[in-house]
Amino acid sequence: MALYVYKFGGTSVGSTERIQAVAEKVKVSHDAGNQLVVVVSAMSGETNRLIALAKDIQSQPSARELDVLVSTGEQVTIALLAMALEEINCPARSYTGNQVKILTDDSYTKARILSIDEANMRKDLAEGKVVVVAGFQGVDENGNITTLGRGGSDTTGVALAAALKADECHIYTDVDGVYTTDPRVEPKARRLDKITFEEMLEMASLGSKVLQIRSVEFAGKYNVPLRVLSSFKEGAGTLITYEESGMESALISGIAFNRDEAKLTINGVPDKPGVASKILGPIAEANIEVDMIVQNIADDDTTDFTFTVHRNDYQKAKTILEKTCTELGARKVTGDDTIVKVSIVGVGMRSHAGIASTMFDALAKEGINIKMISTSEIKISVVVDEKYLELAVRTLHKAFELDQSNS
Amino acid sequence: MALYVYKFGGTSVGSTERIQAVAEKVKVSHDAGNQLVVVVSAMSGETNRLIALAKDIQSQPSARELDVLVSTGEQVTIALLAMALEEINCPARSYTGNQVKILTDDSYTKARILSIDEANMRKDLAEGKVVVVAGFQGVDENGNITTLGRGGSDTTGVALAAALKADECHIYTDVDGVYTTDPRVEPKARRLDKITFEEMLEMASLGSKVLQIRSVEFAGKYNVPLRVLSSFKEGAGTLITYEESGMESALISGIAFNRDEAKLTINGVPDKPGVASKILGPIAEANIEVDMIVQNIADDDTTDFTFTVHRNDYQKAKTILEKTCTELGARKVTGDDTIVKVSIVGVGMRSHAGIASTMFDALAKEGINIKMISTSEIKISVVVDEKYLELAVRTLHKAFELDQSNS
Repeated sequence: MALYVYKFGGTSVGSTERIQAVAEKVKVSHDAGNQLVVVVSAMSGETNRLIALAKDIQSQPSARELDVLVSTGEQVTIALLAMALEEINCPARSYTGNQVKILTDDSYTKARILSIDEANMRKDLAEGKVVVVAGFQGVDENGNITTLGRGGSDTTGVALAAALKADECHIYTDVDGVYTTDPRVEPKARRLDKITFEEMLEMASLGSKVLQIRSVEFAGKYNVPLRVLSSFKEGAGTLITYEESGMESALISGIAFNRDEAKLTINGVPDKPGVASKILGPIAEANIEVDMIVQNIADDDTTDFTFTVHRNDYQKAKTILEKTCTELGARKVTGDDTIVKVSIVGVGMRSHAGIASTMFDALAKEGINIKMISTSEIKISVVVDEKYLELAVRTLHKAFELDQSNS
Repeated sequence: MALYVYKFGGTSVGSTERIQAVAEKVKVSHDAGNQLVVVVSAMSGETNRLIALAKDIQSQPSARELDVLVSTGEQVTIALLAMALEEINCPARSYTGNQVKILTDDSYTKARILSIDEANMRKDLAEGKVVVVAGFQGVDENGNITTLGRGGSDTTGVALAAALKADECHIYTDVDGVYTTDPRVEPKARRLDKITFEEMLEMASLGSKVLQIRSVEFAGKYNVPLRVLSSFKEGAGTLITYEESGMESALISGIAFNRDEAKLTINGVPDKPGVASKILGPIAEANIEVDMIVQNIADDDTTDFTFTVHRNDYQKAKTILEKTCTELGARKVTGDDTIVKVSIVGVGMRSHAGIASTMFDALAKEGINIKMISTSEIKISVVVDEKYLELAVRTLHKAFELDQSNS
């Protein structure tokens, strides 16, 4: 007998029919003797409907009241799923975040979980009940309703799995697992049976939106095995663990990419200590997130400083940078918002040399010019012109033999 | 400085515009220096939408989960109203039934309030905040969400007013007060400035649906002055108190009526002790509510037994009664589902003789045949053919001079 936490997102519970389908899936596992805690999101569209009501009334809704409002979305789903389970003779009991209780800090709309009380859930599980929990929500020490912010339901699932020491936390989504790359770009992309937390974090942060980064971090921190599966079709999905695939492991697990990049360069900055912070300080103050950063010293004691930002922030960042350029006596600001980032990710990289040159060679052979390079222990990212995105992904997928099974 | 509890029903908060209008009304009173607790229902249509979702899944939804589901309706409204108040610089804080907390028994879908914790509300009121409370809902001692059943938001308003010893509880509705009778039937119907709890109870139980009986009983029990007012137009409404109108008081306060009646008679029942319970027992077991009961002894040692039921229960009751007829060796069952009940209500009746004969005379003069009569200390009801309803109401309204001001 195993204890699993299942999490179903908004699309999976988007109608009463889909909620009934989720109930059937849960019942199969329950009948097989598993203890189950099921975390659900609001029905798709519901959270947006509620936020629209709030914005009708306040352009900047009160954060406390917004949490009172949107938390009703998941509360509706838990009640309906518990009913659907009881209807097919699968005993169930619903819990709001407050009822569990999932104690959080008081940062409305982006609260952090502090602790989880297992007592009620343990009691229900021991009685053979399926425990249905509202994702995304908690309660602060004064009894105020809080929500966890983006990806909050995944976080709830992982946190419950950690608290209950569940065997696995299953995240049901509209994809059937984590792929070597986006199948819409490379049809030969293959589902991975396993991936490590670190690889998953790099994949997620590089634009593979299967899971929210925060829930993967959380799962990694508490060593909760995560499995990504499809709500709509059968299959084992992809298991995310600390365990590596062993001796035969592939060098590279996947190719991630991000279309939303733009790069900015400030040329000819007089090279003095503190230049980087003078350039990036005003950018950070404007709440613009900087991704890659590259600095080169030129011959003439000036430096060229390049960084990338989200494409939506490009114009704003450029305006700020032009002001900084004048202040620092730099030569000029250039930029490009038609670039993309392509990355290879794999823990195998740690113990194998030559990965970078294989990557650069493969791209060069296809005539793809690399505009920036950034590396981490388990990732190499390059910035290329956006017109090369698909070609670069397919080239690297082939170069690292990702279409071959690694198991 | 007075402390008021205001209650706004579903129609009054049926859209974001109406919620903003309620906020404006509340702010005027708050700015005048009053301490305010505002109880709200779900936006009109919302509770039905939620119940429809539940019925999609379970024909008989689990009572516990139904309460989890429908309680989200009021939770949405409290958040939106608190936002609307904050938007116009009127400090406010929302509370679910659980957050107040309104402790109830565990009878899901029809829970009874056991106690109310005033501490949080008192603190907010002392800080000058408007306290916005979700009507219709509470929490049992195990933290399960409960709802109070029909008219539950009125009950919440009265219970909060009792707990806080409020000066008055204002029930805002779509009518501007309690009338001497239904103005759609008698255009000369006049709004009453005052009415006693007992009169209001009789009026409500006789089909004047301004307030739910339960909330009036509750207000009477705890001596909470209730005021019925319109959400949409100005006016003092009708005050419901123990106080009578004094020496000059009218004999009769109003004419109530009920169109939903049907009557059933079992003729020629051998008259033995226990006959009444043998007849009504099976009716009660079928959960059919009996309203008026009349029994006459005939000459031949048999009795005719007549009672009224809700028109929807007529066929079901008749079938049961026919079985009883055979068992008791009675002669036959007759019935009529085209009857109505018309009643005069007034505490003045207690101290004045001749009210009944005035009533019967007036009806007789118009050729209206009385089929049944039932009386209480402050009410006389007659059953007449449904075609006479409007005529009977107008005749009695005139006979007791209800179109003349009583103040």
